[in-house]
Amino acid sequence: MARRGVGAVSLVECGVIRTSAAQPLTVRIREIYEAVVELILRHQPFAMSVEQVFHGKNAQSALKLGHARGAILLAGALHDIVIAEYAPRQIKSAVAGTGNATKDQVAYMVKQQLRLKEVPTPHDAADGVAAALCHSLIGSFPVGS
Amino acid sequence: MARRGVGAVSLVECGVIRTSAAQPLTVRIREIYEAVVELILRHQPFAMSVEQVFHGKNAQSALKLGHARGAILLAGALHDIVIAEYAPRQIKSAVAGTGNATKDQVAYMVKQQLRLKEVPTPHDAADGVAAALCHSLIGSFPVGS
Repeated sequence: MARRGVGAVSLVECGVIRTSAAQPLTVRIREIYEAVVELILRHQPFAMSVEQVFHGKNAQSALKLGHARGAILLAGALHDIVIAEYAPRQIKSAVAGTGNATKDQVAYMVKQQLRLKEVPTPHDAADGVAAALCHSLIGSFPVGS
Repeated sequence: MARRGVGAVSLVECGVIRTSAAQPLTVRIREIYEAVVELILRHQPFAMSVEQVFHGKNAQSALKLGHARGAILLAGALHDIVIAEYAPRQIKSAVAGTGNATKDQVAYMVKQQLRLKEVPTPHDAADGVAAALCHSLIGSFPVGS
């Protein structure tokens, strides 16, 4: 969650949503959905920035990722939030100046641009902040497709 | 949707949910979710039977399928409906007596067992009825995993 004030962007909150692998898939999907809805209700965002996924992993892991991602996008869509999707290269380019930036470089630039004391941890949280920062920097609102 | 009465199962409604490929993904996910919720509110089912997916197609199509499937499972989970998942072979075996049954054989057995005048169309609707019938025949309620 990043907020754009008068010429400044600040980080309000970041983190990761974890579910237990021991739980049935349907319970985990619900947990993800409810965690995102809780964030939406708490922060009342007007936009959601999501990283596009193009990965060459096997179909079974892509299917699982799709279940989780569907729950997240649905949480945004049901609350009439603009959903912007960015390719990983777009995010790296917007935040760190090059589409080939490493995870460490992206995390460092996130820290610098948001004037944070520490790099957000874990890496997935930093990635989330980078996606949000990308949206605030690029400033357009492409609808997720 | 199949209803189990005193020793008899009857078909209440079947069909397919279609979305437009021209719409953004988030809109399509929302349409699927809302269509399933509408069915849930109308029929007040106590269980949802879903076909498991193990397909060898590419990761990108599995990801898309996962988004849609996540929305459907979430609709059930948020309404505290028991979600039973069955492998395609289990469904064919329960409905048509063999895990190697063709789509036509499954559709024919669905028609016979539910005393329908016609085979449900399209094939995807017949598949949905077969999944529901499988659940009513097998009678256990494994939680989706």
